[in-house]
Amino acid sequence: MDVSREALLGRMRELKDLSGIIGLATWDQETYLPPKAEAARAAQLSTLQGLYHERLVAPEVADWLARVGAAPQSDDERAMVRLLSRERDRAVRVPVDLVRALAEAQGAALTAWRVAREGRDFAAFAPALQRLLSLRREQADAIGHEGERYDALLAGFEPGLSTARLMPVLHALRDQLVPLVQALDGWPPGPDVLAGLRFPADAQWRFTVELLGRLGFDLEAGRQDKAVHPFTGGTHPTDVRLTTRISEENLSAALFSTIHECGHGLYEQGFRPEDHRSVLAQAPSMGLHESQSRLWENLVGRSLPFWKALYPRAQASFPSQLGTVSLEAFHAALNRVARSPIRVEADEVTYNLHIVLRTELELELLRGNLAAADLPAAWNAASQQLLGLQPQDDVKGVLQDIHWAWGELGYFPTYALGNLYAASLLRACEAAVPGVWEAIAAGDFLPLRSWLRTHVHAEGARLDAEDLVRKVTGTGLTDVDFVAYLRRKYGALSGRSL
Amino acid sequence: MDVSREALLGRMRELKDLSGIIGLATWDQETYLPPKAEAARAAQLSTLQGLYHERLVAPEVADWLARVGAAPQSDDERAMVRLLSRERDRAVRVPVDLVRALAEAQGAALTAWRVAREGRDFAAFAPALQRLLSLRREQADAIGHEGERYDALLAGFEPGLSTARLMPVLHALRDQLVPLVQALDGWPPGPDVLAGLRFPADAQWRFTVELLGRLGFDLEAGRQDKAVHPFTGGTHPTDVRLTTRISEENLSAALFSTIHECGHGLYEQGFRPEDHRSVLAQAPSMGLHESQSRLWENLVGRSLPFWKALYPRAQASFPSQLGTVSLEAFHAALNRVARSPIRVEADEVTYNLHIVLRTELELELLRGNLAAADLPAAWNAASQQLLGLQPQDDVKGVLQDIHWAWGELGYFPTYALGNLYAASLLRACEAAVPGVWEAIAAGDFLPLRSWLRTHVHAEGARLDAEDLVRKVTGTGLTDVDFVAYLRRKYGALSGRSL
Repeated sequence: MDVSREALLGRMRELKDLSGIIGLATWDQETYLPPKAEAARAAQLSTLQGLYHERLVAPEVADWLARVGAAPQSDDERAMVRLLSRERDRAVRVPVDLVRALAEAQGAALTAWRVAREGRDFAAFAPALQRLLSLRREQADAIGHEGERYDALLAGFEPGLSTARLMPVLHALRDQLVPLVQALDGWPPGPDVLAGLRFPADAQWRFTVELLGRLGFDLEAGRQDKAVHPFTGGTHPTDVRLTTRISEENLSAALFSTIHECGHGLYEQGFRPEDHRSVLAQAPSMGLHESQSRLWENLVGRSLPFWKALYPRAQASFPSQLGTVSLEAFHAALNRVARSPIRVEADEVTYNLHIVLRTELELELLRGNLAAADLPAAWNAASQQLLGLQPQDDVKGVLQDIHWAWGELGYFPTYALGNLYAASLLRACEAAVPGVWEAIAAGDFLPLRSWLRTHVHAEGARLDAEDLVRKVTGTGLTDVDFVAYLRRKYGALSGRSL
Repeated sequence: MDVSREALLGRMRELKDLSGIIGLATWDQETYLPPKAEAARAAQLSTLQGLYHERLVAPEVADWLARVGAAPQSDDERAMVRLLSRERDRAVRVPVDLVRALAEAQGAALTAWRVAREGRDFAAFAPALQRLLSLRREQADAIGHEGERYDALLAGFEPGLSTARLMPVLHALRDQLVPLVQALDGWPPGPDVLAGLRFPADAQWRFTVELLGRLGFDLEAGRQDKAVHPFTGGTHPTDVRLTTRISEENLSAALFSTIHECGHGLYEQGFRPEDHRSVLAQAPSMGLHESQSRLWENLVGRSLPFWKALYPRAQASFPSQLGTVSLEAFHAALNRVARSPIRVEADEVTYNLHIVLRTELELELLRGNLAAADLPAAWNAASQQLLGLQPQDDVKGVLQDIHWAWGELGYFPTYALGNLYAASLLRACEAAVPGVWEAIAAGDFLPLRSWLRTHVHAEGARLDAEDLVRKVTGTGLTDVDFVAYLRRKYGALSGRSL
């Protein structure tokens, strides 16, 4: 028994080290890799992933898991066995040939997607997407499900969450957002006070690094670099790598990508040190990870108290641009609502409608009720229904995201889950820490960060996401807190009754 | 047979990918790793190195090597089998327990070395060094040798070179350098024209990147970053990572660390693309690798023709510092000769005496003729004899280098080999490419670079270093070309008859 435990712990540490190194190679790919090294890096990553897979699915691991799982020494050990078994089962069930076919189909679909965007011609993408869909269906069947294939894919990002649990919540959300967007039509009336201003890249960089320090991101256990598509990566909770994107025409890009990634980064830095080389030191789901980035980005970073504390620093960083802009005007500019066909440009109110649109289409694609070729028409109809507009063309519509070209189905809903979980967690924090907003308005983020660290970050993956949220907030997945937050915030901003 | 060949090639590519990734993790450790992540990175590297070892020494590899080696399809395949077998044999022969004991002893010795430097007390280091020496002797015996243990260690850096071949060359070199240094005593008479000037870090950075481009380093297949101790790393010939060190008080630091590492980098970028995932794409020895860095740094980078071409660019980069300094004064300042107790500050004339000193002591330590505790006395005596001076204290003497604290014995001579090989290779290039210096004086480095690429870089590890040099220059390892170069250069500079 002790021999199995030692062996299992040793293998787990090895897998952690390997996934940390995969994290390094991926981060480097998006930050510093010389352009001619792309092919070499792809081969290196494939070798590492192959080794990771091999060490995970090795037969002896099943044996160790069975022995240790039969008599776990603690709740943590039980959770560890559960998490490792779940990951291993998924990996074992998908045949190597299918993994290879998927990788090839992803490559082909990605190329086809680029060609289709270039030529504004969805038909150039449809066959490759259809092939990928059929492989994803095969993969879902290999993993196993009880009739709903989407469940098997969703479980890869959101373990424990079923389609049957998810969709009613998304639909309730949709049913409240559509009239809310209509009620905000025409607001705000004036022009954007930030439009047309240029913010020097160096000053933006310094200001984002200052923000990280103030928000409590440990810059000795992590760093920030630049990337075209910002993301959070890294190799270990002591080595968390944020990225940001600086655009001189658009201060918001760097501000909110830094604050967003900082939310992810605080999560990664908040695991318990004694868990660091264990599978417990991870978020239980992508949705819960996203709850932390969205909480900091939107609920905190676009709030008036946040800018009460930090706007003087922003003005000091950009005196000629912001010197004459009032705090209220700046805050309003960060919170403009407008229907847009583009998800990544969407504001807090309309954003989740973009997710509902995609999730419903994914579900129909996977159920076989919708063919890839029919996607543009379905997309445009849903866009009209949900957002009240149709994209000018497919590049601004169905071809806008890279996710389907990767064959990533089941990922989009995690963005909405993040928004919903964030609002519920913040409500619970406000109840538990009455002075939290006063502290934020004074530039003190410790009360909020400590509460999140204790109740969310330090828990790691001990509980599935919804169970953790239920434990902390008293309710599980719900649209109620998020919708109440939107009504409160945008009612106050717009002066309309929402 | 074909099955074995495929399997062997597959394993070789996997090993190449793994060593590339170890290169990435090591480079990152010296450039961007957050300070709190040091322990995590050490664990990740240890896991990767363990996997590399395991995949290399696996019994099936011996089988594949035997089958493919019995009937190689080409000379390249024969060389590949020879290189892989040699690496594998070394790895197999050292027992895992000894590897572990060495790693622990290295850690302890490194700590003791730091304590000893801090307290200027060699005695704090001696026991840890003695322990490391005894393990190195054990390792040398495990690897195997014909009576001279140093051979087994030397082979790790300089395959094919024996102590019996090396020492007479080093002694001949010593016997000419000692009088040469004496003949240059008191030269140069005037003060250093660069002393006291400050060179802004940003301008230095831009100038070094410009240099890399002009020398022909492909910045799309590599990059430059900053590091405290400059080195060349990377993951692949399309991903070569140079580092440099900028000191505002000392322009030479960045200039010559960039040019030195560029020499290494051109070597790495110069392997044949069809060899990239093979063991053929490596230098046959550390000494030959060092020949490329020293050739560019010293023989080219400290030459008058080089600065004829580039001094106007240097003046444009540092107008207020260099605007009134003549080309000749600048060139003379880069080539001052002075006895110093410190190896890394030594000029071209005295440098190799520092190497002779260390190599002789290493040999005596490993033969058991010298105990660690007696090193300071032996060091100081040798320093007096070779350099005509004794260090003020052990920190400026026997404790100055980190190599012995790592237990790295057999490495120092590769620096001298690099200098000797560089001079011989340049002599051969001058004979083969008559206009090479005129081109350099016109800022055209292509004739030199092409010749090196064809005759050295593209050969990879097909031949052992001395065999390659013999093929290219007509002579093997010799001090003749290097000493002739020094006499010619410093005779002209000093106006003395040398």
